[in-house]
Amino acid sequence: MSHAYVVNTHEAIVDANKDFVSAFGKGDAAGVAALYTENGQILPANVGVITGREGIQGFWQAVMNMGIKSARLETVEVEDFGETALEIGKYTLCGAKDQVLDSGKYLVIWKKDSDHWHLHRDIWTTSMPASK
Amino acid sequence: MSHAYVVNTHEAIVDANKDFVSAFGKGDAAGVAALYTENGQILPANVGVITGREGIQGFWQAVMNMGIKSARLETVEVEDFGETALEIGKYTLCGAKDQVLDSGKYLVIWKKDSDHWHLHRDIWTTSMPASK
Repeated sequence: MSHAYVVNTHEAIVDANKDFVSAFGKGDAAGVAALYTENGQILPANVGVITGREGIQGFWQAVMNMGIKSARLETVEVEDFGETALEIGKYTLCGAKDQVLDSGKYLVIWKKDSDHWHLHRDIWTTSMPASK
Repeated sequence: MSHAYVVNTHEAIVDANKDFVSAFGKGDAAGVAALYTENGQILPANVGVITGREGIQGFWQAVMNMGIKSARLETVEVEDFGETALEIGKYTLCGAKDQVLDSGKYLVIWKKDSDHWHLHRDIWTTSMPASK
């Protein structure tokens, strides 16, 4: 007997974030980059827009090389438009002793590709005070 | 004879940005804030999420008080979901002598309220190098 298995988009996004956190925690920048769409973009501070998985991998590798060992993501809000979803959440980036090195908020445009949600546009800002 | 007047969403967003630029150029932080939804949010760097027009007005007033006299906005990408639209663009903030004080990129979730588009979620990052 077939069994309809329905996952709502909010849960699907939370699950996709678990994949992000898992790959990040392994230091697997290629695995993180693979969670983005082929033409995915990140919009980090202090550089221009970075497009495509190769560039995205390089960015996250550089972040890991700076000593950031793990990421935590907390979904705050999801809006679902079928093949597109919007997520606002909070992130925390930690060092080797699990100390918080950065925390802030993010907005991600997700795209659904067959059964999988991929990050398509990803922008975040630190909530930590500016260094003087 | 009635005349159907159709504006596509890309044009409507570009027009709404002109209102933002105009209010900003007049130093009218309340006018800028009025372009957001009632429960609009901005996600600036170095502070937490700011919700609602009063807080948004206060933020932009503080930016103006820092000597930023004008904003330029360039729409790069718009995706339309009916009552919601996503925009990615580039911004430039200038001082009294029109010198560029900041430039970067932004992602805005717009919401349509009757005929008007309002900024609902607004996040941007500078593209300038980090100060050492």
